[in-house]
Amino acid sequence: MGTTQLESVPEPKYWHLKTVLSEALDSEFAVGEILPNERELAARFGVARATLRQALEQLELEGRLQRRRGVGTTVAPPRVGVAVGTEQRTWPGASGDDWQPRDSVPAVPPATVADALETARDEEVHLVSRTRMTHGQPVAAELLYVPRGSVPALSGIDAPSGTARARAVLRELYRLRLDGEDRAVELGSARADDAKALDRLPGAPVLVVTTRFFAEGRTAALSVATYRADTCRLTFGDGGGVEIHHGPERQAS
Amino acid sequence: MGTTQLESVPEPKYWHLKTVLSEALDSEFAVGEILPNERELAARFGVARATLRQALEQLELEGRLQRRRGVGTTVAPPRVGVAVGTEQRTWPGASGDDWQPRDSVPAVPPATVADALETARDEEVHLVSRTRMTHGQPVAAELLYVPRGSVPALSGIDAPSGTARARAVLRELYRLRLDGEDRAVELGSARADDAKALDRLPGAPVLVVTTRFFAEGRTAALSVATYRADTCRLTFGDGGGVEIHHGPERQAS
Repeated sequence: MGTTQLESVPEPKYWHLKTVLSEALDSEFAVGEILPNERELAARFGVARATLRQALEQLELEGRLQRRRGVGTTVAPPRVGVAVGTEQRTWPGASGDDWQPRDSVPAVPPATVADALETARDEEVHLVSRTRMTHGQPVAAELLYVPRGSVPALSGIDAPSGTARARAVLRELYRLRLDGEDRAVELGSARADDAKALDRLPGAPVLVVTTRFFAEGRTAALSVATYRADTCRLTFGDGGGVEIHHGPERQAS
Repeated sequence: MGTTQLESVPEPKYWHLKTVLSEALDSEFAVGEILPNERELAARFGVARATLRQALEQLELEGRLQRRRGVGTTVAPPRVGVAVGTEQRTWPGASGDDWQPRDSVPAVPPATVADALETARDEEVHLVSRTRMTHGQPVAAELLYVPRGSVPALSGIDAPSGTARARAVLRELYRLRLDGEDRAVELGSARADDAKALDRLPGAPVLVVTTRFFAEGRTAALSVATYRADTCRLTFGDGGGVEIHHGPERQAS
């Protein structure tokens, strides 16, 4: 059993350091405060730079720290709850949602998306891109794939591209009766273009939410939304946001 | 605007390498195959070890690679869809769920949990620990906090501890009428004990699902479940698993 083996493995050094650093953050630093540089921190805690960096990475994963280009490492505010699944199902672009349409272009989707949409693998669909804003900050970037068959009345004349085109696609989607939706959440790393939209570096950890929208017995649209994992907590269900603020290690007894 | 600044930043070297490596994985390696060691890979692609390591970390985030102690880096199978939210709400431990109770002990919960449960900060609750098994593999470890007020008829006589005690707490919870539940999903890093249960190293990225169970106008139980982020995709909603297999960068046009 792997478990037995693991029991004899001592906790890695960075893990212990992480716990110590976490306590220091609570007692000595305020939200938004810039941490001393790596050299100083390594000296203060008597560890190698590599060990320090691993501990900082852990704290970043847990949303305690933010590393920003040109600013340094700062103490992160608590994550913001962002509602993803709600009781009422609605099409993307319903009034009151906080997504901003950016563009719509014709595009051949990746094979896995084409299969889910039951379109031919070389068939173009409407590819709508949107950004979700919360408290004035971009928190998610979305690619929404809409087969032409889902919006047959869409005309190319009055809004050939850009935001107006995106709005036109969403408006047409609205004519369909939404029968249901399902979602999957997984860990990913930010693609270059999403990273740019979210003001992150390429490769930053993100939460990828894939949603299928069902209408008329098939998948009428498919959304791949990339959420900032550092600042967002995704919320689902009845009661609005879950107001439990800290990462898992702080909830242990 | 931060965005404008970022536009002039070239893609980091590891990002390009990641794309190249990803293509090599598709064309040259099978699922489960062990990759050459870092030295060989760095030489083959003409990059520094540090750059290689960053690219491997990205691919691990995206679920393409798995790094295992004593084995090396292997090509990961597609992530497994694990249902988290369903149409029917049920208490933890309902028949047919794939969670295995491990233990139940009295414990003072963290302050944030106590506040959500509306218990006094120094009040002990039942702390039930469970492991979720999928296809014989542990995919999640859970801490379930149950205030004594939620299970008033529980007697300490016949099952003072262990699995039997955990089952007794869950059985008593079942007497309450479940009015609703809500959930939050966020990124975290595995605590030492969860890491052990999940056969991962401490600090590995995990998806933390916090669920509040509502009954009789209050939060009757609160669960903090830690899912392996490398092998799991969390699914929600009507249609069962979303069968879109690959990470975000493979879904781009």
